[in-house]
Amino acid sequence: MTATIFNGRAVATLLQHAIADEITTLQHNNHTTPAITTVIVGDDPASHLYLKLRDTACQQVGIHSHHRSFPATTPEKDILNEIKQLNDDPTVHGILIQYPLPPHCRPQTFMRTVNPDKDVEGFHPINLGRTFSGDEFLVPCTPLAVLTILTSEKIPLKGADTVIVNHSTVVGKPLAALLLNRDATVSVCHIFTKDLKRYTSNADILITGSGVPNLITADHVKPGASVIDVGIVQTPKGITGDVAFDTVQHKAGFLTPVPGGVGPLTITMALTNMVKTYKLSMEQH
Amino acid sequence: MTATIFNGRAVATLLQHAIADEITTLQHNNHTTPAITTVIVGDDPASHLYLKLRDTACQQVGIHSHHRSFPATTPEKDILNEIKQLNDDPTVHGILIQYPLPPHCRPQTFMRTVNPDKDVEGFHPINLGRTFSGDEFLVPCTPLAVLTILTSEKIPLKGADTVIVNHSTVVGKPLAALLLNRDATVSVCHIFTKDLKRYTSNADILITGSGVPNLITADHVKPGASVIDVGIVQTPKGITGDVAFDTVQHKAGFLTPVPGGVGPLTITMALTNMVKTYKLSMEQH
Repeated sequence: MTATIFNGRAVATLLQHAIADEITTLQHNNHTTPAITTVIVGDDPASHLYLKLRDTACQQVGIHSHHRSFPATTPEKDILNEIKQLNDDPTVHGILIQYPLPPHCRPQTFMRTVNPDKDVEGFHPINLGRTFSGDEFLVPCTPLAVLTILTSEKIPLKGADTVIVNHSTVVGKPLAALLLNRDATVSVCHIFTKDLKRYTSNADILITGSGVPNLITADHVKPGASVIDVGIVQTPKGITGDVAFDTVQHKAGFLTPVPGGVGPLTITMALTNMVKTYKLSMEQH
Repeated sequence: MTATIFNGRAVATLLQHAIADEITTLQHNNHTTPAITTVIVGDDPASHLYLKLRDTACQQVGIHSHHRSFPATTPEKDILNEIKQLNDDPTVHGILIQYPLPPHCRPQTFMRTVNPDKDVEGFHPINLGRTFSGDEFLVPCTPLAVLTILTSEKIPLKGADTVIVNHSTVVGKPLAALLLNRDATVSVCHIFTKDLKRYTSNADILITGSGVPNLITADHVKPGASVIDVGIVQTPKGITGDVAFDTVQHKAGFLTPVPGGVGPLTITMALTNMVKTYKLSMEQH
């Protein structure tokens, strides 16, 4: 068996054309261009590539993307005050925080400070609570990208044995909620899981985001399973995911590569959420 | 092997003594008695017993418990307006809604309308989001009761293979979050799960809340496992849970009975949350 390999760039391009068309119409009706602001603290090198890709995508669909950059030593409260000003600024339709933050900045405080109506990343507790309770509105981008792949590929979710290797608040937990909301059976594994293979080898759908290259070998995969690789690791040989691609591609039925799989969709989902916050802002003003 | 049988009434009594002592001190310092209001719509017979038990518990620890009862035909907006008045009333420290509501009342709208600072049940999206993201404050009572049992019995959670049979927003999903926040490996099963036994028979900790009597037989249980029964079903023979108690007690290592297991703790957790909302109210005024 050879797996169908997902072409994330092609699917992202298609979706982004649709988003661009929607923005043209919205802009025409509202006489305003959607504008988002990203708050950047310090100079994390890994963030640059992602920021650049996202800015390019914004430009292509017609969203103005602004940056507010602060030195890594800026007191937390000064940055929080800036976020509060962005919250109240009607010309800013969406706000993103570039994570990771320097150690003196508390991510949960930042997530709570962003106006939930402008929360492109879906990390505000009220948006996480909505995702969690099935009243999904602004859903975190990586989980939403995974869900979009599964649904666009028509991979059945109801009753599917699904394993997620990641239990973070930004990936694993919201993804578990999205899948439970669609009646999948969901197991969430992580570094403290005693016997990972026992879980993964029974999974109809395996989503992995550990950041450990080659964590998932062919032995971990049920024949014909759908395997979605959310891992992104910079190695001397280039960017790689969690999955030993060369062997797993001969066992899985569907597989997303890294790069070119989930990543482009994650950026597209940020655009989708930007359109949502823009529409909400237009309804409110 | 014979399982240790959990005595929920005894543990609840101990915890309630501690809560009563805390309330005596708080009352002395604040010159105000904690007061909660339960909004009741219609006349669901199953609710009566629970309400009566909770009111008795409130009385025993020194909390004033009031009811606002509406006929089942009351328009939703009239009840929501009443909730908004309770939200703004400084003499009301906590608000509970008695579920299930009649069909014309939307539970999610009710959950969203309660002031999150007075949300004794922890169902407001912002409180669910906090539970979900590990910033736990007002946690739904049944999941909190299960966690309290596990921690008070010193059952190790980190890395434990844990199975939850229930994927609702009020039990299964918040419980999954609480356990993931403590690094358990968590599988969430439900009516659409293909092979329930494959999951449950590998579980170190099995928590079941399906409402199906005898769903969990000895075959479903790993020898020595901790089994927590959240099911409550009224049968001709009396109240029962999900677990075939007579056989499972000879296979499990720890087992909670129904009645007298999780139930008394659930009421105690409501009291715990009432104390939290009361303290918050005192800090704010």
